[in-house]
Amino acid sequence: MAQADDVLDLARRLIAAESVTPARGAVFDVMESMLAPLGFDVHRFVRGEGAEGGDEAPVENLFALREGPAGSRHFAFAGHLDVVPPGGGWASDAFEPEVRGDLLYGRGAVDMKGAIACMVAAAASVPQDAGTVSFIITGDEEGPALHGTRALIDYMGRAGVRPDLCLVGEPTSVNRLGDMMKIGRRGSVNIWIEVEGVQGHVAYPHLADNPITRLVAILAELAAIALDEGTDWFQPSNLEITDLSVGNRAHNVIPAHAEARISIRFNDRHSGASLAELVADVAEKHGGRAKPVISGEPFLTPPGEFSEIVAQAVEAETGITPEASTSGGTSDARFLRAVCPVIEFGLVNATMHKTDEAVAIADLATLSRIYTRIALAALTQHKTA
Amino acid sequence: MAQADDVLDLARRLIAAESVTPARGAVFDVMESMLAPLGFDVHRFVRGEGAEGGDEAPVENLFALREGPAGSRHFAFAGHLDVVPPGGGWASDAFEPEVRGDLLYGRGAVDMKGAIACMVAAAASVPQDAGTVSFIITGDEEGPALHGTRALIDYMGRAGVRPDLCLVGEPTSVNRLGDMMKIGRRGSVNIWIEVEGVQGHVAYPHLADNPITRLVAILAELAAIALDEGTDWFQPSNLEITDLSVGNRAHNVIPAHAEARISIRFNDRHSGASLAELVADVAEKHGGRAKPVISGEPFLTPPGEFSEIVAQAVEAETGITPEASTSGGTSDARFLRAVCPVIEFGLVNATMHKTDEAVAIADLATLSRIYTRIALAALTQHKTA
Repeated sequence: MAQADDVLDLARRLIAAESVTPARGAVFDVMESMLAPLGFDVHRFVRGEGAEGGDEAPVENLFALREGPAGSRHFAFAGHLDVVPPGGGWASDAFEPEVRGDLLYGRGAVDMKGAIACMVAAAASVPQDAGTVSFIITGDEEGPALHGTRALIDYMGRAGVRPDLCLVGEPTSVNRLGDMMKIGRRGSVNIWIEVEGVQGHVAYPHLADNPITRLVAILAELAAIALDEGTDWFQPSNLEITDLSVGNRAHNVIPAHAEARISIRFNDRHSGASLAELVADVAEKHGGRAKPVISGEPFLTPPGEFSEIVAQAVEAETGITPEASTSGGTSDARFLRAVCPVIEFGLVNATMHKTDEAVAIADLATLSRIYTRIALAALTQHKTA
Repeated sequence: MAQADDVLDLARRLIAAESVTPARGAVFDVMESMLAPLGFDVHRFVRGEGAEGGDEAPVENLFALREGPAGSRHFAFAGHLDVVPPGGGWASDAFEPEVRGDLLYGRGAVDMKGAIACMVAAAASVPQDAGTVSFIITGDEEGPALHGTRALIDYMGRAGVRPDLCLVGEPTSVNRLGDMMKIGRRGSVNIWIEVEGVQGHVAYPHLADNPITRLVAILAELAAIALDEGTDWFQPSNLEITDLSVGNRAHNVIPAHAEARISIRFNDRHSGASLAELVADVAEKHGGRAKPVISGEPFLTPPGEFSEIVAQAVEAETGITPEASTSGGTSDARFLRAVCPVIEFGLVNATMHKTDEAVAIADLATLSRIYTRIALAALTQHKTA
């Protein structure tokens, strides 16, 4: 396998199985039908018991394992089969994969069914006796992610399975395949700040207690905090106020309630909990309260052996040295970091989440060879370590 | 006249002429029918050419003049015949005046058709040769007030008529008739502050420009300004932030626009224009802009001869010494201050603008006698000055 036609066919089959997040069923059937013939033991399970459309809606997950010889290393491919909604305006149906020119069009072409096809092709090229290979595949990365990769990690823990290294196939390349990998991601926390006051007439302020005055004091104090100056691998942590809301249309009325929402993207100098506490302290000092929702903790796989493996594989196939970045949003690497060192590397992300999402067919072949090199090196280098 | 029955009858007739702001027609017919027999020359006119319900809707105004002997002083009664909407839950129809017990119920009973009835009764008790008496009566004090008392002042200017003193009949008494007069009012300005930024993703703040950060800086700076410490007659000027609005539901998005509204009630150390400029300077320093709407300038008739006249009249009829206050909202005195010294004195305001607005019938008789004393003293004392 790992020929261009084979990878293209795998990608087509995955895209054709419509799987807007949260994904279940057909697309996992396709995935299982690809992995089972390669010697993988496939375990699928559904988690979440809420209503469709809610954060607790059922999602499917798949863990596939092909064990190598006793004592061999374990390398994991991780990714997601769910996709974001297609939106309108496509030149061809988003779920009918179509080749036009050098490109394959379809929702998920780069994020990340194309990359998963490359992982499957790579697994086919890695001899079983090279070591243990697994697939950690969820149907909810684009949604709330409550029952996705976290449930897979729970499952692996109970099964006593622990990879030594994990590659996540997010589309990390920016302009050309190979120009960027992610060795970390910042953490993310959203915090709602609410202040209650006492309503009154602006002409009689002594009879009222203006919650906006206190909210502004909280926000001004938060905005003045320099969380850190960045690290060798991370940008400085950053706090943004993303919403203000009072909803008082009466010019002469001091309102009773004011609220704001902030969003903090933070590096490994902080945790979601430490920032939530910092914000709560400032809010409470001025009589407000803070409600945090931690979306993800930061992760960092410091440059070293794993990033070298990825870089050498990329250089061998593309001639490009990938930048080791920690920029951008969050991914499921935030969860997998708790299991083993994680690096993200995948296709060019220019069209992800957009109309006419497309991947260069040549990139599929190249990425499958890169993934093969990474898997082989990860299993081999560690075996000799 | 000035008997209890007469004043009660005048008040009933005014209340029965429904006149939710802006007022025209019937209630002015009633007013003219009361003043003409007393020797007043009545001039009525309508201003405003906008649609009903808009700020420019037509309103009626009335200026009535009874000239005294050549060279005599000129004392003016000022007030409004429009009322606020009745709202629901009345025990009797808001526009069918009804006596129950010691009270007369009806919309406008205290604010301020009752007081206007007292003015008419007082005018009937003041001999024509005591001096010149006038009525400055608008149909739009409770609304936008664009074409009300301001139009009357324009008219008087063109007619070459200028009162020496003016009494506005707003319901200034708080607990008992006579306990408070207003010798001034604070000014009022509402200012909208808007900041434009550049929308972006919170994970890439360097590509965005968060307008909320700058808005918070503006508001924190404004909130920290002590406008003044008050004067002998005024409370300190006060700035309240009355609304915040962004309307950004996306947690990960830095919005493009943020706005706030502030309301300043200010004493005679400031003007609406000086405060608008102060706020605009702060806003512009942080890249925002300010749009002021000045509702009224402050006025003060410093304690002296006029307040003495009012106080003595009140004391003679009630035994109470009225407090000389500058508290509360605005009134048409903000306009009349440009013509001559103005003081506001009227009925007990406990039920104004509320359901079951009512006036004590005994207060109507007492107030008509107080108004008579004020008019006579104003004309007399000045004549000998």
